[in-house]
Amino acid sequence: MNSNFYCIIMAGGVGSRFWPVSRISCPKQFLDILGMGRSFLQMTFDRFAGIVPKENILIVTSDRYAELVREQIPGIPKDNVLLEPYRRNTAPCVAYATYKLLSSNPDATVVVAPADHLITNEDKFENTVLAAMERASETDALYTIGIKPTRPETNFGYIQVSKTTETQIGGHTMFDVKTFTEKPNLEMAKIFLETGEFFWNSGIFIWNLKAIKAELESCLPLVARGFKAGGNCYYTEKEEKFIHHVYAECESVSIDYGVMEKTAKARVLMADFGWSDVGTWQSVYEHSPNLDANGNIIKCGTSMISGVNGSIISTVDSKKLVIVRGMDNVMVVDRGDVLLVCNRDDRTIKDIVTDLMMKDNTEDYL
Amino acid sequence: MNSNFYCIIMAGGVGSRFWPVSRISCPKQFLDILGMGRSFLQMTFDRFAGIVPKENILIVTSDRYAELVREQIPGIPKDNVLLEPYRRNTAPCVAYATYKLLSSNPDATVVVAPADHLITNEDKFENTVLAAMERASETDALYTIGIKPTRPETNFGYIQVSKTTETQIGGHTMFDVKTFTEKPNLEMAKIFLETGEFFWNSGIFIWNLKAIKAELESCLPLVARGFKAGGNCYYTEKEEKFIHHVYAECESVSIDYGVMEKTAKARVLMADFGWSDVGTWQSVYEHSPNLDANGNIIKCGTSMISGVNGSIISTVDSKKLVIVRGMDNVMVVDRGDVLLVCNRDDRTIKDIVTDLMMKDNTEDYL
Repeated sequence: MNSNFYCIIMAGGVGSRFWPVSRISCPKQFLDILGMGRSFLQMTFDRFAGIVPKENILIVTSDRYAELVREQIPGIPKDNVLLEPYRRNTAPCVAYATYKLLSSNPDATVVVAPADHLITNEDKFENTVLAAMERASETDALYTIGIKPTRPETNFGYIQVSKTTETQIGGHTMFDVKTFTEKPNLEMAKIFLETGEFFWNSGIFIWNLKAIKAELESCLPLVARGFKAGGNCYYTEKEEKFIHHVYAECESVSIDYGVMEKTAKARVLMADFGWSDVGTWQSVYEHSPNLDANGNIIKCGTSMISGVNGSIISTVDSKKLVIVRGMDNVMVVDRGDVLLVCNRDDRTIKDIVTDLMMKDNTEDYL
Repeated sequence: MNSNFYCIIMAGGVGSRFWPVSRISCPKQFLDILGMGRSFLQMTFDRFAGIVPKENILIVTSDRYAELVREQIPGIPKDNVLLEPYRRNTAPCVAYATYKLLSSNPDATVVVAPADHLITNEDKFENTVLAAMERASETDALYTIGIKPTRPETNFGYIQVSKTTETQIGGHTMFDVKTFTEKPNLEMAKIFLETGEFFWNSGIFIWNLKAIKAELESCLPLVARGFKAGGNCYYTEKEEKFIHHVYAECESVSIDYGVMEKTAKARVLMADFGWSDVGTWQSVYEHSPNLDANGNIIKCGTSMISGVNGSIISTVDSKKLVIVRGMDNVMVVDRGDVLLVCNRDDRTIKDIVTDLMMKDNTEDYL
């Protein structure tokens, strides 16, 4: 493996779409929602451990998850876990990792990826990422991976490309970026699919450190300046205090919006390695390897389920007797202090979480 | 009030149709399933306290419920709580109370009633029972109260009467009994209703002690002999041991089958005071005084219910956040160690209980 190749796993999210299975104290990336035997973070780590040297994998997360990361990735060096004291979206996360790494290896080429996505063809994934890293190590382009859409999905962001800019790298098709697009409605998503110019935004980026440093300083000068100032703090006992100070001051902005949409150097590498951000229960359901004969996902200690189809039943108390009868396509989630019973395709669970955030004395449920 | 009038409340049942709200440790008669503020036993006690002197109300129950009875009916004299060491159906229960009472007041007239029924017109009820007791104190007939059916109900037993035997007592119509009938199917229930010869079997009996003693000795001689032998044990410290011995030997038989169907002295007093045995969730639902605007019965400490209609949601942990969304006519019952999610009209809950009885190591759930 190329010792200049690094991976930055972004694991700081506190999603609410899987509440109450995911909680603020243990969000999606630390859970094995699919029943794979490994959490999303562990699967992501394993995946990149086949692409870059293990010791070159950095995990950026909230300081509240430091212990969870150490539990799930035993033996990970302290310096490889970058702890964010505040939530500031993905650009500060990338900037932190970039400037820290610059101070130890300015020749690094990195792949930046979310901790909580599913890849179904790991070989293709490895092949694509390596091809992009090889190229990124030699150029100052900022590569993002666009997934060839297979359906008019309304739950993903899209990247529109300039078809005329098509080139090939290592057997992969590449385009210049035209625009980044938020989640479309169904009508729009269908049009996207027809044009052939739109790709799902995987949130996976590949670039060399000097290239991203230049673009951070050009597109987000204030953010860049904050992290740049810490050159002599990284890898020392001063780092924590310095980072606390920088994050407190730093604006909250995504790398997509803050850099990728502004830079002229963004390129999209087309891929079809089977990707999902697993952002809905519907998606969990579709990707679960553990459906029973009635199409149910059942994670209970003691249960008597009958006449139930296409449902997700999940409890934590293994001694609790769970009985569900005569219902289709429902979700029954019991977390001890929270019980949720709804339809599997209910997309309003986020609203409950918002309600709970606004109310007094309900933070323990989050 | 007539000091020779007594009431025997039969409170030994261990029904399973309301499991897991009712449990072996606390069956239906001790619960306030309807949300009335009083348990069925308490409502039954209150009802008869308006008809007979309070100190003349006896409660027959399983010895495991002695404490529950004392909690729910504070101050009830020890001698008024008759404890059964084994479940032997209603005939031994009646025989125990009959022979015990004979030893203290052979001139008593008694009304025998289940502890877990609902009466919606208490005044009419009182009037009917008193009329029957007045008459019973003067004759050796065995009166049972038949409820005029208002619909082809398949959840109740029926009593068929001889229409030609119609007489009046105190403004109430009375007939001789032709037969007792088990729960019919719908087709049969419709025919029952059309003939006008069938009444719902309320399980409420009225007779004087000498009359029931004679019929017990004639129809169930072995049962009667057992309890009769204890004449000098009742109201002494020997009673418990004696009763233990008699119950161990005693056959299990209902008063309907053992006496009422065999005797020539059974009479049916027709009544329409609004009666239900509240034997199904559907029935609980129909009789609940606490439906919310969406027709739900919700007994939860902390809940967020939306888009839910006609449902029963009941939990015991007041701090648990219960969320139910977008479902109609369901039951969600959380009892800490048991969670039940099913349709409100599910009549197979008894089967679950049977399953649990047959399995190993599941008795704690019952």
